[in-house]
Amino acid sequence: MSEHPLDPVFHPRAIALVGVPERLDGRGADFFLALLDQGFHERKPVYIVHPRASEIRGIKAYPTLLDCPDPVDHVISLIPRHLVSTLVDQCVEKGVRSLHFFTAGFSESGEEGMAAAERELAARARAGGVRVLGPNCMGLYVPGERISFSLGFPTDAGNVMMISQSGANAGGVVSGLAPRGLRFSKVVSFGNGSDIDAAELFEYAGSDVETELVLAYIEGVPDGRRFLEAVRRCARVKPTIILKGGFTDAGARAASSHTGSLAGSAAIFEAMCRQTGALRVDSLDELFDMAVAVTTRARQIRGRRAVLTGGGGGFSVLSADAIARAGLEMPDLPAETQERLREWVPVAGNSVHNPIDAGFVGDRHGVADEVTAVAAEAPGYDFVIASRGDFRMSPPRPGDEPADADERADRETRRRERALESARTLAAIQERSGRPVIAVRREYAPEPAGEFHVEAQRLGVGSFFSVPDAAHAVDTLLRWRERREGLPEIL
Amino acid sequence: MSEHPLDPVFHPRAIALVGVPERLDGRGADFFLALLDQGFHERKPVYIVHPRASEIRGIKAYPTLLDCPDPVDHVISLIPRHLVSTLVDQCVEKGVRSLHFFTAGFSESGEEGMAAAERELAARARAGGVRVLGPNCMGLYVPGERISFSLGFPTDAGNVMMISQSGANAGGVVSGLAPRGLRFSKVVSFGNGSDIDAAELFEYAGSDVETELVLAYIEGVPDGRRFLEAVRRCARVKPTIILKGGFTDAGARAASSHTGSLAGSAAIFEAMCRQTGALRVDSLDELFDMAVAVTTRARQIRGRRAVLTGGGGGFSVLSADAIARAGLEMPDLPAETQERLREWVPVAGNSVHNPIDAGFVGDRHGVADEVTAVAAEAPGYDFVIASRGDFRMSPPRPGDEPADADERADRETRRRERALESARTLAAIQERSGRPVIAVRREYAPEPAGEFHVEAQRLGVGSFFSVPDAAHAVDTLLRWRERREGLPEIL
Repeated sequence: MSEHPLDPVFHPRAIALVGVPERLDGRGADFFLALLDQGFHERKPVYIVHPRASEIRGIKAYPTLLDCPDPVDHVISLIPRHLVSTLVDQCVEKGVRSLHFFTAGFSESGEEGMAAAERELAARARAGGVRVLGPNCMGLYVPGERISFSLGFPTDAGNVMMISQSGANAGGVVSGLAPRGLRFSKVVSFGNGSDIDAAELFEYAGSDVETELVLAYIEGVPDGRRFLEAVRRCARVKPTIILKGGFTDAGARAASSHTGSLAGSAAIFEAMCRQTGALRVDSLDELFDMAVAVTTRARQIRGRRAVLTGGGGGFSVLSADAIARAGLEMPDLPAETQERLREWVPVAGNSVHNPIDAGFVGDRHGVADEVTAVAAEAPGYDFVIASRGDFRMSPPRPGDEPADADERADRETRRRERALESARTLAAIQERSGRPVIAVRREYAPEPAGEFHVEAQRLGVGSFFSVPDAAHAVDTLLRWRERREGLPEIL
Repeated sequence: MSEHPLDPVFHPRAIALVGVPERLDGRGADFFLALLDQGFHERKPVYIVHPRASEIRGIKAYPTLLDCPDPVDHVISLIPRHLVSTLVDQCVEKGVRSLHFFTAGFSESGEEGMAAAERELAARARAGGVRVLGPNCMGLYVPGERISFSLGFPTDAGNVMMISQSGANAGGVVSGLAPRGLRFSKVVSFGNGSDIDAAELFEYAGSDVETELVLAYIEGVPDGRRFLEAVRRCARVKPTIILKGGFTDAGARAASSHTGSLAGSAAIFEAMCRQTGALRVDSLDELFDMAVAVTTRARQIRGRRAVLTGGGGGFSVLSADAIARAGLEMPDLPAETQERLREWVPVAGNSVHNPIDAGFVGDRHGVADEVTAVAAEAPGYDFVIASRGDFRMSPPRPGDEPADADERADRETRRRERALESARTLAAIQERSGRPVIAVRREYAPEPAGEFHVEAQRLGVGSFFSVPDAAHAVDTLLRWRERREGLPEIL
């Protein structure tokens, strides 16, 4: 396969940081520390450019970029705006391939002089063979290359690419999806997009073999036609989910301050997404849920008929309401399935109808799993929603507290094991029945269930925080599938 | 004040449990353990009725109810359905004031014979001077009396009464509001409502001096006119928030299995709430948020003009969109306020417009607080939304891990202190400016912020998990206030 023009940006042979604060205070320090955190320096050189320091945290510093050893492929600029012009010249001279400006204060300031300065810088760099990321952005998170713009991001790579006009939202997507078990091929925060922009990144994402799901946060689209064409090419072949910021007047004003974007009309953007086959979402939470939906067997759901297994009568009632409100159907169970369920579900206070109320959620006797297995085999349903542990009715009993730290650790291990086992059982039911299973497990302190979601995802079970969230995701998926009619099947 | 007929139910002098499993396995055990957990037995007698056991967990057992010492005011029935007829007779003979049937299998089974049996039992008890709670319910949580139906509920009392046709949802409301800092006067799960029903409980709640906020989960209303009148009397004088289950066909079927309720028409119920001045909500989460809104100074918000302080450009954009979508307004700041803000907000990459982007959320230098204080004084706004810590950009740095358990504990203490301090600062800004402040602090593992919400609530600051949630709560509050026009002012 021939190399894409952006490939070198994602695979630098060495990185130099210009403007790392010597005492590692201030925000610029995080870019340096994040590279160390990921272990980039253990594989490839990291250089620091600093006028006085000889080294910072064991990494040698050089007075100028030109003093660094060759090659330097990627440069991260953490210096103030008035110093960057010289840096651009040095990058050209040094043969740098890409220059990331964390540096801000250009077109997003709303001042025409600054916008012109941005255009001039980008043009000069580009003419000298240097691609520009930003200004006013967080740059790259490429875990396969051990590159990150933030501390604490996962060090393992995955198949999700995130294209973001906002650094905070790029980070938010990593923080929001990592506990759901998703991992990333590339995350790019491109800010003002003076050179590398959304269109080029969509085009890259569509052809990148490491990327199977494309996510994006977009504020403004300077060149609508080019953007449309790039999104169309990407969304034809890969699930492509776009969160558009600045849809309202207040949001548009914020977008203008943020990245100098003219947010444009909501209706036009929505129409564009429909045309291209991309999915537009309204919030980060919706983006997270849809990313989970299309990377698990939830994507195979082809109809609206749901059967719900859970516990607690009131929970069943509210869940049924939420499922119906999302436009899904809950036909009642055939008589023979009800008969089979009677073995597991006591008559009193519970229900063998759909939704199936198999008793309380604190259930440790596996009744919920048995009931879910029976429900998954019932004819006439498109998918199963299996709720686990919405509100815990059985906290630890008095006189039952762990004696010491060892016992506490032991219990924590067993609790984790139960959560994992629960996810594995649902995955096995999904495999055996051939029917998509949607898991719902609400996050409740003091017993977070992160490992449940991660294990479910690993095994292809779509896992959500609430029944309304799950129902909304399925409805969105089905409507999206309909709109994609005529395009290649990717769900 | 004269005693309400239900008062004795909430203030028993002694409780007897019938059917506690000797080995404390099975669900019935929790009712017994919950009383011990709360310490009821340290103040007043608890008796166990058991055919063979002489004591269970140190509490003396008697072969029949009639053998227990006098008085026994409240009896909890954990025995199977076919044994309860005798128990009713014994309760009458013993002079018991209230009988709670956890026992299920009556009208909710859908069988007319069982429904008739339920009516007959209730009538017989009532004729003998015994009030009946249930059947098919969890009964009472009255922390002031140390009565609870579940382990782990708070032991301190508050001013919220919850009336619930579902035990799981009653428990869910306690579990959902306790971490938000709310506490309860009385929580009643009344199940099939064969005697004590929703109407009587609303009537009680309206006049109960311990109750200032009334919440309810209702599935069916057998006597619409009486119910309407009771809700009207209650909602005139106290904020009254009702979650109605079984609004959709699927939900109505579930409600019928659950409590034998005929759910009735959604439109009629909605119209009824409008007539009475009660607020109808669609989910438990919405109920939680509205409970927070009406118990803090958020209830004083009288207009739609919001100013948002937060951090992260993309976060600001999405938040502005969410606020506008909720029907709220975000007029831009007056020039003199922008001028004052420039002292705190660097120009580059941030914004002194509304929404105010005061830099990143990880901010530990108090800039967000300074900016919020300035925003709260700006003319032309009805309230402030102050976002704290949506997506953390600054997790612990490498080489910065705590050395030992002591240091970990020490850091945890400091983290808690920072969360508390943050809530206190917002409360001080609210007091000083006289303008309601809405706090948003998203719960993110591994750093739960429960103490932030509790402290904010204690100090009268409405505190929510996300900007969309907060905006939705304010919009709901304002529409509710409008609809209440002509009724006594209670918000």
